Amino acid sequence: MKNNTSIKFDIVKSPTTKITSVDFENLTFGATFTDHMMICDYENGAWKTPEVKPYGPIELDPSAKVFHYAQAVFEGMKAFKDDHDKIWLFRPEDNFNRINISSKRMAIPEFPAEYFFPALEALLKLDQAWIKKGFGNALYLRPFVIATEPGVGASPSTKYKFMIICSPVKGYYDGEVRVKFSDKFSRAADGGVGFAKAAGNYGAQFYPTALANDEGYQQIVWTDAESHEYLEEAGTMNIFFRINDTLVTAPTSDRILDGITRKSLIALAGDFSIPVEVRRVSVAEIINAAKDGTLKEIFGSGTAAVITPIQGFGFKGEKYELPVLTDSYATFLKDKLMKIQYNLAEDKFGWRYEVK
Amino acid sequence: MKNNTSIKFDIVKSPTTKITSVDFENLTFGATFTDHMMICDYENGAWKTPEVKPYGPIELDPSAKVFHYAQAVFEGMKAFKDDHDKIWLFRPEDNFNRINISSKRMAIPEFPAEYFFPALEALLKLDQAWIKKGFGNALYLRPFVIATEPGVGASPSTKYKFMIICSPVKGYYDGEVRVKFSDKFSRAADGGVGFAKAAGNYGAQFYPTALANDEGYQQIVWTDAESHEYLEEAGTMNIFFRINDTLVTAPTSDRILDGITRKSLIALAGDFSIPVEVRRVSVAEIINAAKDGTLKEIFGSGTAAVITPIQGFGFKGEKYELPVLTDSYATFLKDKLMKIQYNLAEDKFGWRYEVK
Repeated sequence: MKNNTSIKFDIVKSPTTKITSVDFENLTFGATFTDHMMICDYENGAWKTPEVKPYGPIELDPSAKVFHYAQAVFEGMKAFKDDHDKIWLFRPEDNFNRINISSKRMAIPEFPAEYFFPALEALLKLDQAWIKKGFGNALYLRPFVIATEPGVGASPSTKYKFMIICSPVKGYYDGEVRVKFSDKFSRAADGGVGFAKAAGNYGAQFYPTALANDEGYQQIVWTDAESHEYLEEAGTMNIFFRINDTLVTAPTSDRILDGITRKSLIALAGDFSIPVEVRRVSVAEIINAAKDGTLKEIFGSGTAAVITPIQGFGFKGEKYELPVLTDSYATFLKDKLMKIQYNLAEDKFGWRYEVK
Repeated sequence: MKNNTSIKFDIVKSPTTKITSVDFENLTFGATFTDHMMICDYENGAWKTPEVKPYGPIELDPSAKVFHYAQAVFEGMKAFKDDHDKIWLFRPEDNFNRINISSKRMAIPEFPAEYFFPALEALLKLDQAWIKKGFGNALYLRPFVIATEPGVGASPSTKYKFMIICSPVKGYYDGEVRVKFSDKFSRAADGGVGFAKAAGNYGAQFYPTALANDEGYQQIVWTDAESHEYLEEAGTMNIFFRINDTLVTAPTSDRILDGITRKSLIALAGDFSIPVEVRRVSVAEIINAAKDGTLKEIFGSGTAAVITPIQGFGFKGEKYELPVLTDSYATFLKDKLMKIQYNLAEDKFGWRYEVK
């Protein structure tokens, strides 16, 4: 699968570059895109030849199913450049496998690995000047699939576009983050699509998050829809709690995304002899731990920020602040994980993938 | 609000028409569109002047938020032509109000009534040749809103398009319909977006429905996500059960769409002294009623088909058939409702809206 060169794909190089107009020191997350994109059409039951071509708008019929029925999935990945100008991906097979898991749940045809990796690598090589060296700099990659068949009948599309677009990003720091434990809104149902990176999971969070913003919180921590007693995910991240010196995080389920950063942190913590418990975490337990001082940290995990430390939380109007630590797991694990990503530390788990 | 002519909107007439190429006797639902569409952009905090213009593709950046986060809502409506060539809508204020309820939940700015009705009416007048006379013929109207701002940051868009597209349809008959009562998959969570016509609710149904199709069912009846003990919605329709001579349907909630056909049928049934109970309906109750012969009918209700009679259902591998009735409520109520829609009966509830 890796560096497979037997698959044909078409490359059209952009005659110009936008790179000179980009201020790489002041990047808004996901707002700037590189010179090229990958696009591959599905029609008549088959994926066509992938194309790497100049980044630009796409044209769709107003009745295209993605607009009406959100038959759409995506992934988030990053490419890193080390001090020797080598380009690295982090566990890309996991992203590739997950987009197909998401696609299956959304009745979208799976995408072949022998198309994905060569086309992605060709795209990265063409846009390699956009991957800046330096700890924290990266090229955020957004593979996604959209249903493009015209027609408002409520049935799966027969046409799709699989695309990859790329956005240069800086180390992500969003200021202090306080979260609201949701006591009303929910992210996903049992038997629903919460485990998938389905587009609809994300748009549905905007309104509850805006209400939480108005109360002074930056994000919502989603609780189970039945009882709002168990903590599940933080905004678009998985969530970890440190109680005394043990890390606790919820198990994945059909409501909770199987985060690649999440499982990498669990493996890394184990490797450094940090006890990790993967089990349901109740709101009551966390509130009690905050009150008796055993709650040391909360942090979110995800591709964009790797780890987002959380300074405080609220539930049903009560607010709780977390202590400031000098031996934070968040800081420790983020540094360890990023050093692997940037080829600055041994990769004992085999997570790095070189783009050659 | 009605027939407000003080609002400016731009009209660009199509120089040609596709109507002569359309076989109005053989229409696939939602696959053929008229010559014009309505489009209105939201930018800088305001809706711009609506335009009625030739139907055609739209161009979007590949990072447009609708593709990634499904920040998108829609409505379904119909226009009817009576024997005197008058054009009628059915309770359009309810669709208008509901799209704004859906928009609010999806953090989309509400659309003004004083834009919606004049622009819709101008569109209908321009495409009035597409509305065919005859019981069952109609023009299906699809208002929808999509988030168009480029950028993959997971936050609400600052740019939107509100559009209306129109598709001629025949009386909808899908053959015999048998439904599977879901015992695994779910449509919506408490605290989620099930009550909204959010795009993501629909794409998420395609895969479970395809699995049910493989088992010989045409649709799924969604049950509550917690226990799968209560019946909620049928595919994209509300659902009614006739037990002895009483109609029973689930109450609306934050999981169940407040269907306009549903509430019209409840009102009509009451008017014809058919007892209606709006309450939770359990799977066990319906199976018992099927076994003891008191279950007379099941039917779905929605804009597309008005009423879809259901011939049988299955749950956990057991299949149940319904009796064939000569005094079906489905047939009776569908006829009564459609006669109001087509201006063939008195409109005592004030549901008709004439497009002048």
